[in-house]
Amino acid sequence: MKWSRKHLLDIQSLSAEEIVAVLDTARSFKAVGERSIKKVPALRGKTVVNLFIEPSTRTRISFELAAQRLSADVINFTAEASSLKKGETLKDTARTLEALNADIIIVRHSATGAPHFLSRFLGASVINAGDGAHEHPTQALLDVFTIRERKGRIQGLNVTILGDILYSRVARSGIWALTKLGAHVTLCGPSTLVPKTFEQFGCRVTHDVEEAIRDADIINLLRIQHERQRRSMFPSIGEYISLFGLNKARMASAKPDALIMHPGPINRGVEIDSSLADGDRSLILEQVTNGLAVRMAVLFLVNGGGSLQSE
Amino acid sequence: MKWSRKHLLDIQSLSAEEIVAVLDTARSFKAVGERSIKKVPALRGKTVVNLFIEPSTRTRISFELAAQRLSADVINFTAEASSLKKGETLKDTARTLEALNADIIIVRHSATGAPHFLSRFLGASVINAGDGAHEHPTQALLDVFTIRERKGRIQGLNVTILGDILYSRVARSGIWALTKLGAHVTLCGPSTLVPKTFEQFGCRVTHDVEEAIRDADIINLLRIQHERQRRSMFPSIGEYISLFGLNKARMASAKPDALIMHPGPINRGVEIDSSLADGDRSLILEQVTNGLAVRMAVLFLVNGGGSLQSE
Amino acid sequence: MKWSRKHLLDIQSLSAEEIVAVLDTARSFKAVGERSIKKVPALRGKTVVNLFIEPSTRTRISFELAAQRLSADVINFTAEASSLKKGETLKDTARTLEALNADIIIVRHSATGAPHFLSRFLGASVINAGDGAHEHPTQALLDVFTIRERKGRIQGLNVTILGDILYSRVARSGIWALTKLGAHVTLCGPSTLVPKTFEQFGCRVTHDVEEAIRDADIINLLRIQHERQRRSMFPSIGEYISLFGLNKARMASAKPDALIMHPGPINRGVEIDSSLADGDRSLILEQVTNGLAVRMAVLFLVNGGGSLQSE
Repeated sequence: MKWSRKHLLDIQSLSAEEIVAVLDTARSFKAVGERSIKKVPALRGKTVVNLFIEPSTRTRISFELAAQRLSADVINFTAEASSLKKGETLKDTARTLEALNADIIIVRHSATGAPHFLSRFLGASVINAGDGAHEHPTQALLDVFTIRERKGRIQGLNVTILGDILYSRVARSGIWALTKLGAHVTLCGPSTLVPKTFEQFGCRVTHDVEEAIRDADIINLLRIQHERQRRSMFPSIGEYISLFGLNKARMASAKPDALIMHPGPINRGVEIDSSLADGDRSLILEQVTNGLAVRMAVLFLVNGGGSLQSE
Repeated sequence: MKWSRKHLLDIQSLSAEEIVAVLDTARSFKAVGERSIKKVPALRGKTVVNLFIEPSTRTRISFELAAQRLSADVINFTAEASSLKKGETLKDTARTLEALNADIIIVRHSATGAPHFLSRFLGASVINAGDGAHEHPTQALLDVFTIRERKGRIQGLNVTILGDILYSRVARSGIWALTKLGAHVTLCGPSTLVPKTFEQFGCRVTHDVEEAIRDADIINLLRIQHERQRRSMFPSIGEYISLFGLNKARMASAKPDALIMHPGPINRGVEIDSSLADGDRSLILEQVTNGLAVRMAVLFLVNGGGSLQSE
Repeated sequence: MKWSRKHLLDIQSLSAEEIVAVLDTARSFKAVGERSIKKVPALRGKTVVNLFIEPSTRTRISFELAAQRLSADVINFTAEASSLKKGETLKDTARTLEALNADIIIVRHSATGAPHFLSRFLGASVINAGDGAHEHPTQALLDVFTIRERKGRIQGLNVTILGDILYSRVARSGIWALTKLGAHVTLCGPSTLVPKTFEQFGCRVTHDVEEAIRDADIINLLRIQHERQRRSMFPSIGEYISLFGLNKARMASAKPDALIMHPGPINRGVEIDSSLADGDRSLILEQVTNGLAVRMAVLFLVNGGGSLQSE
């Protein structure tokens, strides 16, 4: 076991060994989800809080189920219903949750660095569930878990990330995890969303989708955020689809064993064709399943690990 | 045990034997709710998801408590907070939930056939908690459970359903359940809401409330949906009350042992007088209690049944 | 044990012995929150409902966690998602919850007396989590718990409550609890918010903050409700801060061992300076921790008490 951290704030500060420790632990927990009784007592009597100031049903449910399967008590605290409306600061909210003896606080926040900020004064463990356009570490961990499970390794693989790189915390965390584990990462998308400066992270940057796909072992698509991006970042959804949307014709030029990933929820017919999303080269639903196992592993590890004895 | 279905999608496709199997199982579970420790381990380690795209606090809570008392883990997924807002399809949402190893997905949706649609590709069990104006099978099951418990039988009873039949999934499921078990069903209400075509389901249709009540053993009232229906379906609430509202005078013409039912929430002073709703001929609160037992039975049966050993 | 009540509706009707019984029980439960496994089986198989018609995330979470740590099943019923929208009365909602075999119903409501009203016809236990401007008994109990823990007693202490007394249920419950246990209570704030009539409750009333603070052992601040109060009750927030805000200069004139309390969430820079809120004389976070213990005690006691054997 290489893990001794109290928090999971980002991928950037993790070593390759720590990432692998999460992946190995997640493998054990994945088996729990396949059993008839999907429950282990590892976190019984512990209190886990989902502090979601930026709402996300999918990620919240994944963490909630992960905590339940570890037998923890889970509380959901979302911005809509919260006293943040009354002007309470994030710091006061978090310290209040800690005063309720919360053991682990899972934070999603639109502000970059919110989880790091909380970790500096909280005694509870903090897990970053997405902060601004900065990092989304459990997404990156489930992605590399999925790749390793399917391809047997990360080292030396060609992984292409396609879409909005500039504003994507999924992309940032993914780049860190993949490069630390020895993958060759290619970033592709409109030049407004994929600036050349990303080369400094050890990635290849291209705006030519055929070039990006050609040698890829994994094509990881990012969600196009209609609302925000359409306005200023590219002329139209139609143009994005025609230039960068993944379809059968484009996929035909990829390697025969290239696989497709997407963090979801997908825009069918935008960043990916329906037939590809549902095809046997798509890992999209496996990512969801693996996400639960990875989150169980993270909750387990930040709480100090221990034995995995089943109920 | 006559039950071997993986889903509960509607009453229409059930046999009388299957309906009776649910009622018999529910009788055992009703006893659980009367114990000091209201819990059995039947679904421990199972994951139940309330996928409520059309919100309903009462039905959601009834299913949530039913699942808790069976020791399942429960996740609530409601439309307001969901990624459906981001344009994700129902199919993708449901497949995502299944990828989280959900064992049972309880669906409420404003579109007719949504649960049937999901059942065609999901490995998880699907329970219909109300789909459009189509069916609401657990409501019908709790209604026949309540009638059987009070009257000792369904066969040969006269059951009148009074109110908005046309747009009511409660009425549709109720008609199926009652006629399959041998009751004589009378439908009554304004002619705009109770068309003669319902006679094809083996029911008597009348627009005369005195005639509808006279021989009834059970008078099942439906909720008048102020907002929607008032506009086009009848001139005014006042006119509805005067023509069809159940009050003491009307009830005096019913059989002395006729009982009153209502799926709730009731509009006091509209479809029913307060004194009747709270009187000793009202089964309204018993229906709520029985609903929990019936939903425990349904969750238990679609999951494959098994022994009912207590904790 | 001096407790034999089925409900906790207010502090006004409690005896000093009953209040002390809650405090003594809460002391045992506080230890549970400090253990590694924060769970006792005292309410296993019991159903607790949070019926929050007036939303409050902090209080709801505190009760939810308290119930979870007692191993109860918990259901949240909030006004936003509820069928109250459809015109269902509070009485019908509560009776429906009871028909689901709820053992304890925790009520927060904007109408004074709502919990008392429910307690008159419900078989379930009712706990008042705040009703209008009337009472908020668990807040008062956690306040006196906190004072007793820090000062060793309540009898003979000088406790100043500073802020909006007129519209505050926290103040009302606090006055009852403190005077019953023998504290000398001083009320202070703008004359529009602290009328002389409060002297009839055995309190000293003053509009001079220096006088109010001088001999205080405890200074209990109330939240200034910007929105509502600013308009008619005092000229401006700036004026309130300059006349009544607690800052270092004012605190310098207090006794060296005077301690500061606040029910939260705090308005930093309004009723209290940040440095004081975070200083070592502030009990604000201890109040949160103690609130959980007090709510566990109340849930336990209204359910009939019993042994506190750990899991």
